[in-house]
Amino acid sequence: MRFLSERRLDDGILEREFTLGDIPGILWTPGTTPAPLVLMSHNNGLPMADPRLQARARYTAAQGYAVATIDAAGCGDRPRSAADEQARTELRRAMRAGEPADEILESVVGPMVENAAPDWRTTLDALLELPETAGPVGYSGGWTALGIRLAVTEPRITAAGFFAGGYVPRAQREEARQVTIPLLYLLQWDDRGNPRQRALDLFDAFGSKEKTLHANLGGHTGTPWFELEDGCRFLDRHLK
Amino acid sequence: MRFLSERRLDDGILEREFTLGDIPGILWTPGTTPAPLVLMSHNNGLPMADPRLQARARYTAAQGYAVATIDAAGCGDRPRSAADEQARTELRRAMRAGEPADEILESVVGPMVENAAPDWRTTLDALLELPETAGPVGYSGGWTALGIRLAVTEPRITAAGFFAGGYVPRAQREEARQVTIPLLYLLQWDDRGNPRQRALDLFDAFGSKEKTLHANLGGHTGTPWFELEDGCRFLDRHLK
Repeated sequence: MRFLSERRLDDGILEREFTLGDIPGILWTPGTTPAPLVLMSHNNGLPMADPRLQARARYTAAQGYAVATIDAAGCGDRPRSAADEQARTELRRAMRAGEPADEILESVVGPMVENAAPDWRTTLDALLELPETAGPVGYSGGWTALGIRLAVTEPRITAAGFFAGGYVPRAQREEARQVTIPLLYLLQWDDRGNPRQRALDLFDAFGSKEKTLHANLGGHTGTPWFELEDGCRFLDRHLK
Repeated sequence: MRFLSERRLDDGILEREFTLGDIPGILWTPGTTPAPLVLMSHNNGLPMADPRLQARARYTAAQGYAVATIDAAGCGDRPRSAADEQARTELRRAMRAGEPADEILESVVGPMVENAAPDWRTTLDALLELPETAGPVGYSGGWTALGIRLAVTEPRITAAGFFAGGYVPRAQREEARQVTIPLLYLLQWDDRGNPRQRALDLFDAFGSKEKTLHANLGGHTGTPWFELEDGCRFLDRHLK
């Protein structure tokens, strides 16, 4: 892991860009370390440069967490295969035309999860070597499908916050039953692109004994600010 | 309003039993007053003596609220009409026999809401005369059907926490669309006596622009303790 830049933010938070092989990432550490680590993803591999992701990460770091995000293989600004690009073009066309997009989403998001998960696990290994991180690991996504894959393959992750607004491939809908860690699952009640019943079915499917659904009125990007506070208190209960 | 007893609890909370005409009640006030007032009901008119209700009330008072509960007409240990008693006997029989109980519940809970609401409004009038209370009023129930009736008839109530586990009569399911105050709606995912879809439909029906659903795994009485904290933070956002 090589640090490329370093910036001191409010609340004593240190923000550092890093690379790990060809994986670019950002690590936010709080004033007091070692701190429990939170892996923070963005929905469907959106770039880590996104200001909403960064705002969530800084708030979470200010609550005493080491927070890390990466652009995994095929995500953010990382190069994509010709087949990936073609599937995305087809997806945009179908969505513009108002056609059913589930099968195309499956072909786009399915491989993206498969390819991204190993990069996140490699990053987790490296992050836990740092003196700034310690103790249990949480996942806070954005990207539920990736979180499901990581939760079932990575025993170091002990609690996860998921956002219901994103396509979850068939493989991860199946894997959901194997998820047993405590979950906080966030749903926007009127998220047009993501059928409500499907989101409720996924909540029902998780194998966890402790799982909580928070649903709020409004569309995909309308999650109220207090859910960020609630999300951190959920992490506090399980990681501190 | 006549105070019958006075007891000092931890955290400087004062617990006083009172009567207001033939309405018996309990008022908990925090160390610092005046404090915003929270009306706290128990599901379907269960007695105010119930230890779960009292534990919720004391915790809420410790967060800086004046908290009041009453045994309204037909509730708790208050006398009931012969017709009410007969309907309850019939309800118990149907539930033991595993028969559909909706129509009997309608005949029990419907009149109970109608009769209880005026007592709560009378109590609210009297409580707001006390120097210990001030500012906006919240409702924290247990009893959703009563809360709906109060929310649509009582403009002094500015935020409400509801519990989905209880029969909501047809009249209140209709009135739900007229509820416009911020809501926190608590659902137990596996509450056998209260169909999940009906609870989700009611959440959908509320007219409020700000409404949040918290659903947790488990049966009717399995609400996790952290929801009490979340409930107080919801009140904090709207009453403080």
